[in-house]
Amino acid sequence: MSSTKTVLVYGGSGALGKEIVKGFNGAGYRVMSVDLVANEEANLNVLVTLSQSWQEQSRKVNDDVTAGLSGDKLSAVICVAGGWAGGNAADESVVNNADLMWKQSVWTSLIAATIAAKHLGAGGIVVLTGAVPALGGTPGMIGYGMAKAAVHQLVLSLATKDSGLPDDSAAMAILPMTLDTPMNRKFMPAADTSTWTPLGKVSEYMVNWTENKERPVSGSLVQLVTVGGVTAVKMSDE
Amino acid sequence: MSSTKTVLVYGGSGALGKEIVKGFNGAGYRVMSVDLVANEEANLNVLVTLSQSWQEQSRKVNDDVTAGLSGDKLSAVICVAGGWAGGNAADESVVNNADLMWKQSVWTSLIAATIAAKHLGAGGIVVLTGAVPALGGTPGMIGYGMAKAAVHQLVLSLATKDSGLPDDSAAMAILPMTLDTPMNRKFMPAADTSTWTPLGKVSEYMVNWTENKERPVSGSLVQLVTVGGVTAVKMSDE
Repeated sequence: MSSTKTVLVYGGSGALGKEIVKGFNGAGYRVMSVDLVANEEANLNVLVTLSQSWQEQSRKVNDDVTAGLSGDKLSAVICVAGGWAGGNAADESVVNNADLMWKQSVWTSLIAATIAAKHLGAGGIVVLTGAVPALGGTPGMIGYGMAKAAVHQLVLSLATKDSGLPDDSAAMAILPMTLDTPMNRKFMPAADTSTWTPLGKVSEYMVNWTENKERPVSGSLVQLVTVGGVTAVKMSDE
Repeated sequence: MSSTKTVLVYGGSGALGKEIVKGFNGAGYRVMSVDLVANEEANLNVLVTLSQSWQEQSRKVNDDVTAGLSGDKLSAVICVAGGWAGGNAADESVVNNADLMWKQSVWTSLIAATIAAKHLGAGGIVVLTGAVPALGGTPGMIGYGMAKAAVHQLVLSLATKDSGLPDDSAAMAILPMTLDTPMNRKFMPAADTSTWTPLGKVSEYMVNWTENKERPVSGSLVQLVTVGGVTAVKMSDE
């Protein structure tokens, strides 16, 4: 058993994932990343491919993580894999886009949950990624809303007794409004970025919650609200 | 244009679907059924196969329904396709089962929504099928809960302006607790069936709501609550 604590970041090569990997590295953790491409700052990279089925991706990730841990436990399983696509019910691409959203957000979140069920240590945490708009209807982005609503409900399931997670673990989701990513800067050049949540702030929350500092209660859908460049958390029932 | 009113039942050969087809037949409607096998009581059967992708199933259903309607409009699109599978996050079959639940409940519901967007007439209605337990966590049936939560959120999207449905249409879901089906009788022989909802009662609601009798407001998640053999509706926020 290693004395270094280990965390897993699903989507560790995306803009947010990279920042989270960096945050855990800085805090002295060993970091495993799961993504389509390697993150050189991670200590172990598990690579998946777009051609895999859900079952194949799950098997690959479970096998590689089990081998990489060699019996060690994870302090946190954080899934920030995801994407965005629009379309209403009249849109020719609505089924294609719903399919893509399901794969990017729900496949990854459920596989992360299976990893947590097997490898999370005492007091560990699972954090998935939801979305504020999916708390209501999302008529112009139907597939995205369904996928994120499924992730929200998965958190409720994982936080309930007999979910398969260790009894003393916690499960929650972060619900960003808009993240301050290079892609969002590129595609929304005229937007007011003072309400966008900085990636470093999300990374800071992840490390703190893992270390049980200001960790929200299990089952929380934690909205990240940024106003005037200052980010705070808001529980979805407040 | 035909003077007979037409409805579409997705899942028209299942236990509940058959009862709904019968109910609309009795009320003088022309009924289209979409399912894996034909329902001889339907006026038109659109057959799908388990080997189709989501996109292929959508194309097949959209093509056949468009041809079958020859310009007529639908009074209602009702999706009662679905299934059930259990499993928590530690279960080896959880990904398989989540995949199945997604295909059975969400593929069908979204394809039904695309049909509604194209063919629903003025004042028409879309009814999808959710589940009471998925309003909260479902730790022992994780894939089922995610799929039904996605259907609930789809209803919220469809009921919102610019969803792609005709402006004056309504979208809602029925949320059964336990339906009184032959399968449930077989697998739960010792259960108290006085709280199970009779299929004929659901069929009656479908015909009434289509004819704008006691139709719940658009966006409703309508719980079907049966006590002592008597069924009533309860809105999910009551």
